[in-house]
Amino acid sequence: MYDILIIYKENDMNISLEHKEALSGLIAAPLVGYTKDGSVDTSFIHDYASLLSSNGVNGVFINGTTGEGMSLTFQERKEVAEKWINTSPKDLSVIIHVGCSSIEESKQLAAHAQQCGADAIGIIGPTFYKPAKMSDLVEFVAAIAQKAPDTPCYYYHMPAINGVDFPMIDFLKEAHGAIPTLAGIKYTFENLMDADLCRQYADGQYNILHGQDETLLCGLTLGATGAVGSTYNFMAPLYVQMIDAFTQGKAEQALKLQRTACDILQCMFECSSYFGAAKVMMRWAGIEINGIRLPLSDIQPHEVAKLKEKLNDVGFFSYSNTTKAATGKEEKIVS
Amino acid sequence: MYDILIIYKENDMNISLEHKEALSGLIAAPLVGYTKDGSVDTSFIHDYASLLSSNGVNGVFINGTTGEGMSLTFQERKEVAEKWINTSPKDLSVIIHVGCSSIEESKQLAAHAQQCGADAIGIIGPTFYKPAKMSDLVEFVAAIAQKAPDTPCYYYHMPAINGVDFPMIDFLKEAHGAIPTLAGIKYTFENLMDADLCRQYADGQYNILHGQDETLLCGLTLGATGAVGSTYNFMAPLYVQMIDAFTQGKAEQALKLQRTACDILQCMFECSSYFGAAKVMMRWAGIEINGIRLPLSDIQPHEVAKLKEKLNDVGFFSYSNTTKAATGKEEKIVS
Amino acid sequence: MYDILIIYKENDMNISLEHKEALSGLIAAPLVGYTKDGSVDTSFIHDYASLLSSNGVNGVFINGTTGEGMSLTFQERKEVAEKWINTSPKDLSVIIHVGCSSIEESKQLAAHAQQCGADAIGIIGPTFYKPAKMSDLVEFVAAIAQKAPDTPCYYYHMPAINGVDFPMIDFLKEAHGAIPTLAGIKYTFENLMDADLCRQYADGQYNILHGQDETLLCGLTLGATGAVGSTYNFMAPLYVQMIDAFTQGKAEQALKLQRTACDILQCMFECSSYFGAAKVMMRWAGIEINGIRLPLSDIQPHEVAKLKEKLNDVGFFSYSNTTKAATGKEEKIVS
Amino acid sequence: MYDILIIYKENDMNISLEHKEALSGLIAAPLVGYTKDGSVDTSFIHDYASLLSSNGVNGVFINGTTGEGMSLTFQERKEVAEKWINTSPKDLSVIIHVGCSSIEESKQLAAHAQQCGADAIGIIGPTFYKPAKMSDLVEFVAAIAQKAPDTPCYYYHMPAINGVDFPMIDFLKEAHGAIPTLAGIKYTFENLMDADLCRQYADGQYNILHGQDETLLCGLTLGATGAVGSTYNFMAPLYVQMIDAFTQGKAEQALKLQRTACDILQCMFECSSYFGAAKVMMRWAGIEINGIRLPLSDIQPHEVAKLKEKLNDVGFFSYSNTTKAATGKEEKIVS
Repeated sequence: MYDILIIYKENDMNISLEHKEALSGLIAAPLVGYTKDGSVDTSFIHDYASLLSSNGVNGVFINGTTGEGMSLTFQERKEVAEKWINTSPKDLSVIIHVGCSSIEESKQLAAHAQQCGADAIGIIGPTFYKPAKMSDLVEFVAAIAQKAPDTPCYYYHMPAINGVDFPMIDFLKEAHGAIPTLAGIKYTFENLMDADLCRQYADGQYNILHGQDETLLCGLTLGATGAVGSTYNFMAPLYVQMIDAFTQGKAEQALKLQRTACDILQCMFECSSYFGAAKVMMRWAGIEINGIRLPLSDIQPHEVAKLKEKLNDVGFFSYSNTTKAATGKEEKIVS
Repeated sequence: MYDILIIYKENDMNISLEHKEALSGLIAAPLVGYTKDGSVDTSFIHDYASLLSSNGVNGVFINGTTGEGMSLTFQERKEVAEKWINTSPKDLSVIIHVGCSSIEESKQLAAHAQQCGADAIGIIGPTFYKPAKMSDLVEFVAAIAQKAPDTPCYYYHMPAINGVDFPMIDFLKEAHGAIPTLAGIKYTFENLMDADLCRQYADGQYNILHGQDETLLCGLTLGATGAVGSTYNFMAPLYVQMIDAFTQGKAEQALKLQRTACDILQCMFECSSYFGAAKVMMRWAGIEINGIRLPLSDIQPHEVAKLKEKLNDVGFFSYSNTTKAATGKEEKIVS
Repeated sequence: MYDILIIYKENDMNISLEHKEALSGLIAAPLVGYTKDGSVDTSFIHDYASLLSSNGVNGVFINGTTGEGMSLTFQERKEVAEKWINTSPKDLSVIIHVGCSSIEESKQLAAHAQQCGADAIGIIGPTFYKPAKMSDLVEFVAAIAQKAPDTPCYYYHMPAINGVDFPMIDFLKEAHGAIPTLAGIKYTFENLMDADLCRQYADGQYNILHGQDETLLCGLTLGATGAVGSTYNFMAPLYVQMIDAFTQGKAEQALKLQRTACDILQCMFECSSYFGAAKVMMRWAGIEINGIRLPLSDIQPHEVAKLKEKLNDVGFFSYSNTTKAATGKEEKIVS
Repeated sequence: MYDILIIYKENDMNISLEHKEALSGLIAAPLVGYTKDGSVDTSFIHDYASLLSSNGVNGVFINGTTGEGMSLTFQERKEVAEKWINTSPKDLSVIIHVGCSSIEESKQLAAHAQQCGADAIGIIGPTFYKPAKMSDLVEFVAAIAQKAPDTPCYYYHMPAINGVDFPMIDFLKEAHGAIPTLAGIKYTFENLMDADLCRQYADGQYNILHGQDETLLCGLTLGATGAVGSTYNFMAPLYVQMIDAFTQGKAEQALKLQRTACDILQCMFECSSYFGAAKVMMRWAGIEINGIRLPLSDIQPHEVAKLKEKLNDVGFFSYSNTTKAATGKEEKIVS
């Protein structure tokens, strides 16, 4: 359907010797839910995966920032990972994020992810101690990645949160060859030039996933063929239309859709908790997801009401999955 | 020529009651030069202006960051401003930046700019004391702007340098109506979503100039019709071709050109001094510009040699103005 | 011995209704060691504890930043905590740091620490997600603390590492009453005014532990009666002498000793890895501690040699525990 | 009177070949005032200088941060400098701060300060462009200092405001010998270890002025013999008593006074504008100083009332100069 966005799935393709593979299109970073007693809730994951897939999402990035991976216990991370891997439709790639503050736990999570059949793993830079030099970071990532030696690995770059802010082009230069399974970078930062230098590095063999929903159109313009984001959870149809417009050269329509996405994001940013707002919106999209762990917090009822009103004004509800989920119909809204 | 990039010039148009005007296309931020005794050199400005104009540049932003405005004395800033206003070709809009640490000196520079016939003024947020709240910033800008009551005014947003980092959409909401001459923002920051929210604010009446050369293509994608930058000084033809490709829907060609621009910028970033490298490149483009003021510094001869080699590899010299300047021919390279 | 530094031990005193207790004097933050296969090594902890105690150290802060708590697995943290609690001499208070990125794991570590008989627990603010407002932070700490309801709790303030940088006086105002076991703050930051406001808050009921070895003398001047630090591991005798001099009003001698401490610290700061240098110095002090986990790294042999030379010049070896440890004698060097 | 605080005055001593001199005790950073039409007001400076001197202040630091030096025009800075130099009592040392964003204007201000007879000059690091390396900073300072070749020069270190944050011990190592008039550093930052390393450098020949009023007692403990601050303007008697207590070894009393100073500072920090609060307090101390320049702002009447109440509670009015100024008596409050 999208000529620039060809979807590869590990089990459908011949993995190259270098264990690289292209993951493309929209990759959602699913939210996590909790039961009333505060333990992790995996009951809705099957429906969640189906909904995403039916809305045009090609993959999921599990246990990352949006998925509160750092707030889960070691056991819970494994439980959530297993559920997503086991219940996702075949056409939904599952990337398991295994980064945490202890490199030893990350190694174990990496081995577990491969054992369960993850399509790829993700590794964020150390979240407490900072690497003093680039080689420390590369060694850190390499040591984890080699515990999943047959699974493509994505470095997760998000300096605004973890403070590890080396230019990624320098990371690639040092990691190239040193991390055999390195497949690309989940580039969640606004340095679009650095991201694009990475995209061209080594004849373009690395898959640089665009990481900020509010500038996806810019990412596409710069050659990104895949993107990871949190709002792909509940408004993928909007982005699918935008990618479609972009691919067909309809610049004006693509911009109009990106602007609607930004209007929606701005409504979220104006809430007291971005994550709290996202969970509300996911429920509106049809998935009964509840709870949040401290230090994150839910938004209050009066905020929910205000958010609904504002989202209605900017057109959110024509792009969320509500109707479809409500009716149970799973044909694509856009086609 | 460019249907989305219509050029308005103050003296060619009927200024609206609100003193707004659109400044579009490429706006270079010229470098400043010094004589051997260290005083400011204005002798080459006439040729510099002609060169820019002949290369497709539509305006200049004088005494800003690239132009070392903050390193000039009060008198020197006036001298440089006058020379650019008086010797620029008619089709080159001249914006005079009047921001400095003293609001009183800024007021005088604003009055002077209007008196000399500047097409617009620019005002950076305070560069030493930080405004405690948005209204302090708006009052600061308003007090300066009203000393040039008939001249469109651009707020100069560059938080990475001066640390004044309010979201610009919030600035516009407070400044709208309070600064009658406010025409737009020179948006030199990577928050492209905030920039675009500004672009749409108040029915799009504000001109949000894209401010980072390395992402101009992203800016165009998001609806920018004008851009201020430092590399437009010596490689405007590349960007003119890129805008042309973008306008004609040739996405691949536009990206190829943006990538070449980034390769060139990366060569500059790798030098010990970005400004020092820029002055060398400007000389290669045909303008005899010399000297630099502390704390900035020139690059050393061995760096110059290495820079030349690297720039040659990435194709800089096919896009700089060298040949044209050397032969004195002024027809556009691109058409 | 030190009239301003009276040592309380939980098992020696009647815990007040509020579960507060004063922990005073020098509290070392022990380093962690690993066996050759990379697993945690607890074999030397008994000797380590004895050495510290014999050198005038009154307490230990286990699994904190110096102790690589964030690099250990959940199981390893429990193992290390148990060993310190079980093998420490009676006069050495043991504080177990239980903070980590998952609040659920922190709760379990808190319960475990109390069960094992820890004298106190420490809780750092969230290390990945940042609390949006003070009440989120207080709720986060409270939820963990209440799993060790009979154990005094110290908030661990170290904004330079985890980016949670609320003024602590504001934290105390909100936490006072809301966290019944709150006993004080491990204040590892240079805002000495804020620390001292905390010290005076609520009639001085909170124990504000000074947290930067390089300014311990300033802390004492401002009324601190206890301090947590990493160099108390291997040069406690110097600090004991300094506290002694301070207590006796010998300002000049106290300053001379603080300056020697700073000279030693400066030698460490000049190494490629502060933690790597600390481990070498601990070995010189007599404890066979090895290994380090990525992203931290050891210092190279040539650095070790240089460090030794520099430390010798500034007099480190007269204050480290070398001789004492070597000879097995445990009488105090200072008395 | 204070054996550790011996006061040297340029005109009373034989300047050493190296043009060093010790400036000690309390150095106030006077506030600036404006007339109703917004121009600078110098009418009260004579009384201001007398008041400071009679309250135990030994020097003034003119046109610095507290004195809004960066908000004044070039001409105004010269006017204010001249007035302070010409009307100050003999026992009040006058340091003229000459730093600004343009090195050329700074050079002229330095020459002017020497010509007018300033006791010393101060130079802040560049306030807009940042030096790329230490040698750029040293060259910047050296170039300005040599325009006042017979006047001791103080480097003004305040990284929190201007972002130039090299360790000062590294600065001294590079500047030593390269800036012949370098006499010391106005160290307005909380890195007390770095400050003290500077204090000991080169056999202690540099005068490292303590720069944060809230930790003056710590500075004294670490060997500082002079301090520059803003609250020495209106509550010098408190600090004089504190220095006295410290010198006499009365640690408890000194701490009590430092805590009162911090309580007062906290009242100021809680205002919407620290500078606005300072001006109000200066008026209460007897000097009719008015106006403020954007982006700084005055505090509102309701804030003034609240401030007065809070300051009364913490005892400010027993330490301000009010009575003395009101009665015109100039004998020292403390003796």
